[in-house]
Amino acid sequence: MKASIIGASGYAGEELLRLLHGHPKAEIAYLTSESRTGEQISKLYPHLKGIYDNKLDSMEKIHDIGAASDVLFIALPHGHAMKIAKALSDLPLRIIDLGADYRFADVSVYEEWYRVDHVDSHADRAYGLSELYRSQVRTARIIGNAGCYTTASILALAPLVKEHLVYMDSLLVDAVSGVSGAGRSPKESSHFPEFYDNFTAYGAVSHRHTPEIEQALSDQAGETIIVNFTPHLAPISRGILATCYATIRADAAFEEIDAAFEKMYADEIFIRLLGRGGYPSTKYVRGTNFCDIGWHVDPRTRRVVVFSAIDNLVKGAAGQAIQNMNIAFGFDERTGLDLVPMYP
Amino acid sequence: MKASIIGASGYAGEELLRLLHGHPKAEIAYLTSESRTGEQISKLYPHLKGIYDNKLDSMEKIHDIGAASDVLFIALPHGHAMKIAKALSDLPLRIIDLGADYRFADVSVYEEWYRVDHVDSHADRAYGLSELYRSQVRTARIIGNAGCYTTASILALAPLVKEHLVYMDSLLVDAVSGVSGAGRSPKESSHFPEFYDNFTAYGAVSHRHTPEIEQALSDQAGETIIVNFTPHLAPISRGILATCYATIRADAAFEEIDAAFEKMYADEIFIRLLGRGGYPSTKYVRGTNFCDIGWHVDPRTRRVVVFSAIDNLVKGAAGQAIQNMNIAFGFDERTGLDLVPMYP
Amino acid sequence: MKASIIGASGYAGEELLRLLHGHPKAEIAYLTSESRTGEQISKLYPHLKGIYDNKLDSMEKIHDIGAASDVLFIALPHGHAMKIAKALSDLPLRIIDLGADYRFADVSVYEEWYRVDHVDSHADRAYGLSELYRSQVRTARIIGNAGCYTTASILALAPLVKEHLVYMDSLLVDAVSGVSGAGRSPKESSHFPEFYDNFTAYGAVSHRHTPEIEQALSDQAGETIIVNFTPHLAPISRGILATCYATIRADAAFEEIDAAFEKMYADEIFIRLLGRGGYPSTKYVRGTNFCDIGWHVDPRTRRVVVFSAIDNLVKGAAGQAIQNMNIAFGFDERTGLDLVPMYP
Amino acid sequence: MKASIIGASGYAGEELLRLLHGHPKAEIAYLTSESRTGEQISKLYPHLKGIYDNKLDSMEKIHDIGAASDVLFIALPHGHAMKIAKALSDLPLRIIDLGADYRFADVSVYEEWYRVDHVDSHADRAYGLSELYRSQVRTARIIGNAGCYTTASILALAPLVKEHLVYMDSLLVDAVSGVSGAGRSPKESSHFPEFYDNFTAYGAVSHRHTPEIEQALSDQAGETIIVNFTPHLAPISRGILATCYATIRADAAFEEIDAAFEKMYADEIFIRLLGRGGYPSTKYVRGTNFCDIGWHVDPRTRRVVVFSAIDNLVKGAAGQAIQNMNIAFGFDERTGLDLVPMYP
Repeated sequence: MKASIIGASGYAGEELLRLLHGHPKAEIAYLTSESRTGEQISKLYPHLKGIYDNKLDSMEKIHDIGAASDVLFIALPHGHAMKIAKALSDLPLRIIDLGADYRFADVSVYEEWYRVDHVDSHADRAYGLSELYRSQVRTARIIGNAGCYTTASILALAPLVKEHLVYMDSLLVDAVSGVSGAGRSPKESSHFPEFYDNFTAYGAVSHRHTPEIEQALSDQAGETIIVNFTPHLAPISRGILATCYATIRADAAFEEIDAAFEKMYADEIFIRLLGRGGYPSTKYVRGTNFCDIGWHVDPRTRRVVVFSAIDNLVKGAAGQAIQNMNIAFGFDERTGLDLVPMYP
Repeated sequence: MKASIIGASGYAGEELLRLLHGHPKAEIAYLTSESRTGEQISKLYPHLKGIYDNKLDSMEKIHDIGAASDVLFIALPHGHAMKIAKALSDLPLRIIDLGADYRFADVSVYEEWYRVDHVDSHADRAYGLSELYRSQVRTARIIGNAGCYTTASILALAPLVKEHLVYMDSLLVDAVSGVSGAGRSPKESSHFPEFYDNFTAYGAVSHRHTPEIEQALSDQAGETIIVNFTPHLAPISRGILATCYATIRADAAFEEIDAAFEKMYADEIFIRLLGRGGYPSTKYVRGTNFCDIGWHVDPRTRRVVVFSAIDNLVKGAAGQAIQNMNIAFGFDERTGLDLVPMYP
Repeated sequence: MKASIIGASGYAGEELLRLLHGHPKAEIAYLTSESRTGEQISKLYPHLKGIYDNKLDSMEKIHDIGAASDVLFIALPHGHAMKIAKALSDLPLRIIDLGADYRFADVSVYEEWYRVDHVDSHADRAYGLSELYRSQVRTARIIGNAGCYTTASILALAPLVKEHLVYMDSLLVDAVSGVSGAGRSPKESSHFPEFYDNFTAYGAVSHRHTPEIEQALSDQAGETIIVNFTPHLAPISRGILATCYATIRADAAFEEIDAAFEKMYADEIFIRLLGRGGYPSTKYVRGTNFCDIGWHVDPRTRRVVVFSAIDNLVKGAAGQAIQNMNIAFGFDERTGLDLVPMYP
Repeated sequence: MKASIIGASGYAGEELLRLLHGHPKAEIAYLTSESRTGEQISKLYPHLKGIYDNKLDSMEKIHDIGAASDVLFIALPHGHAMKIAKALSDLPLRIIDLGADYRFADVSVYEEWYRVDHVDSHADRAYGLSELYRSQVRTARIIGNAGCYTTASILALAPLVKEHLVYMDSLLVDAVSGVSGAGRSPKESSHFPEFYDNFTAYGAVSHRHTPEIEQALSDQAGETIIVNFTPHLAPISRGILATCYATIRADAAFEEIDAAFEKMYADEIFIRLLGRGGYPSTKYVRGTNFCDIGWHVDPRTRRVVVFSAIDNLVKGAAGQAIQNMNIAFGFDERTGLDLVPMYP
């Protein structure tokens, strides 16, 4: 099986390479980077020396790349993937877009939040949150790989809304990400002396992962849900911890909450339930495709607090992309992802 | 003026020393530590070499210490200060307790959450959150210095509840602290290789700062308020960022929120309003007594999100203790606290 | 093939588990921990949940453990392994000791620096620095796995002393380690608020890795070498960077230095030569068994500066132990170690 | 006294502001920044809000600025200060340059290492390493403030070379800096996800601080000295630790080494001797003008290892600049610098 990565010079691209190295079925065909065309990837990422010394190609020859590939991973800012996928609509390959272009069933939501017209709105696509959209992922030509914050948030709240155990207008997600989530381009806000020993928030009431969370939770609930979502940055490199709140319905027993998590996730290999009282930590999933989930109920306020932890570059990006590839191609989902977290 | 510190070997004690060095009115009388009695403080804290080489005394001679002091800072775990303060009730000194013993007007709340009987429940005391309880701090014999999370949380939400702009059952505080907040004793959870590149939560639905937040907000609202409070630990040394949520009353305009902050804090020297849309960062207040506050309103959910940042060891402990001392002794509140944040 | 780990609760034991999970030939037989006997390893290390939930045994039944194992990894403080290995001298297994007991050909050097009598001085053993002692590792019953600082230091300087390109009395190693090198027990010096934003040295002129470096370099040079070795701690979790200095012989050309590195390491799969002018970084080898080496020559002082980087828990401990196991059992050395560094 | 800062938007400029706020004699006249002219400094550095809201001016009116100032701090890359100082040669002000332009007595050394012609080679100047060049600093019109690495390195080795206790051709400095030393401009190498959990070297055998170290040590020794200097970067924000090596002369006793440090530094208020066996840490001096020094002797190799720690932004830049200003203007050297390290 031949895999190509469009936008291999970013962190998601690099992480795909790390994981694909251990995947027995996939072989790299092309790697592209517009800014570093012609260079070896190991020049940009010296840690890859001797492992991947491939030369970076340009997207200009995208049709050749597509023709030589069984699967195409696109790791570019939003707006590019829809053009590429459209241009390759004559080819039999599968496309996994790590950006936002194919995440929304209702294209107008995408257009509103991302402020761009969608050029490929009728494509055969699935939302790539593997555990909840597995059957669509299996068959769709294009998979809109779920976002990082959204994966953590949706997996944490899905059982509660699916079972209607909480009031739908009470949902609130307070999440924290490592700095790698913002990509490899140096900025003042991610400059070491600025962000070391610092903690801050950003994107309050306006972050683009909000409608993505709402879409998936509405799917589960069978009714329209809106949420508050507040992202923060901690001085860690990898990891997302989502702290999710909801008010428990007056007629719901706390045990029903435990049961809802068990029911939805007992057989999921990448979801580890830490149970009521459990505390996920970003380091417990570091470098792996796991999503750890624990929850707490407050008899005083009747709120439930759900914590979920993922590695933003793995379950939140490259790992879930490979999980989706495994589903799409009929491999065991664990293939290439059977990893032990790197700790310490 | 003579100041003594009971429990000088912890971080709060050490930070009091750092700040008192720049206070022109206060002179150190005694420093105590039961575990390191007889040693020089600069042996425990080599950074103090040549600045404070004082020998550590034992609390055994607490009455002598009290007699030689105008102000006594107590930086011990809860349960100790009430015994000390009671034993010194014949002395004319002022006591500032950095622990929880004197923080509650209703002693039964303290007894329930801290699971200990209060031995000095009728003491003349004030809750030491300077900006909101200034007149009581001025005159009380004992000041129960406000907690770290609580200072950040209360200052963020007080204007909203005082002006009744939000629904009182909708309050929720999601906060993050640096590791110094857990004290100087090494634990596995604060062991560098464990906590580096890690982010996690703890104390969900049960942290003891919850009733303290409720007490102060209820005071402001004039009605009983209960809240959810969820603490987290980030791999930073100092700093607290509180992210506070509330649902805006249907009859309240967003501008009233802006006005409420201005009204309450416009003249406060240690509170810096970053306005609607502002993002406080822990590093912007590092090493100082500032509390920075910014807020955001969400027209979709009608929730307001308030961020506040403090240095947990300064405004959340030693700095506010000195601010309270300044109030109690009639000094300018800024004395010894007129500092520029250390950045980067 | 059955592998057991004696002392599985430390970082080296935990790292062996991480790496052995990806080793197709090895299966875990026993894991021991005296302090946590009877508990699941995933209780101590929640990141292992669902991957290793094995119960920890006691060393008390070491003979049964040995009889059920083909290879025994011992990850205990020095002084224990020699007793265990001696007690199992009737069994046909191979032993890989990650401690210091079997690192020295001359037992008296061990006894002097470690201040303990050796109880198994005649054992059939090899010094487990794979690249330089491969043939001995292949056949020895007991492998004294090389230390972390020593692996980095020796690999950096070996070509220069073997080819007699430098003055033997001019060698000096200045090295930096991540905090994981000091183990999992929390100490004040590794307490997060103390060691964050801190850099310091320790063990100057006295660290026990000194004679180990001297032994291997003397082996290469064919004459007795003594060195200065100065370790430091940086606020990183993993990684060692050794900065090694030597004065180039007056009759040696700089090109001979380049050639010496090529000659010794061109075919080594885990040694990546970055060439003259190259700068290894600890992050470029993170999580892998690589040792990256770069060097610089100073025409002004005629000193050569060699930098080498390893992951102290992998090439400096568990990874090299598995590499040694692969050599001892005739597997491809890469088995289980064909990893891409985790970056970022 | 009026002070102006040319280049206030960098870290050295910002640190000057932090320290000058506590200096009772100095008042800010002008702050300049070419890239942010017209903005408030607190826009660039939000932590300064309410403390310094001064508007940034342009250097275009440098003569007006000079005329309105008693002292001018120049915090710009090398090559600028010499033009400014020359242009202001008619004004009676004192100039303290934090760059390299005025650090060299022999201008040709500057020209060789910095590859630029010196336009003001005859200026009345002093090398601003306060403790060693105090009398020159007192009277010179222009003070070339010593570099960060150089301050730490020179102070560590000066007593040994002055007393001729070591072989002059054996000196070697291995030093580590926090990332703030590289300035505020974001680069890939200082991008948080890249440099977190990383340790690396740079500038081997070529760093420009080398000739500055050589100049000062040669001054002390009374003979020409050349050294090896190797800088490293650790993931800390502030701090330099220099590890300095020298071979002790065969006729020197170890006690003479102790005596040499005492003799040179016993009365220096900013130098804290930790004695033979002492280990300075960057955190012990954080935020202050201290230089802590400890040393170790090795009877096996007869090398002495000297450790010195400073805060690169204080004793290595802004703090020493103020110390030099105090000397130049006849103030107590401690004025504005009587600070307690910020710890934890």
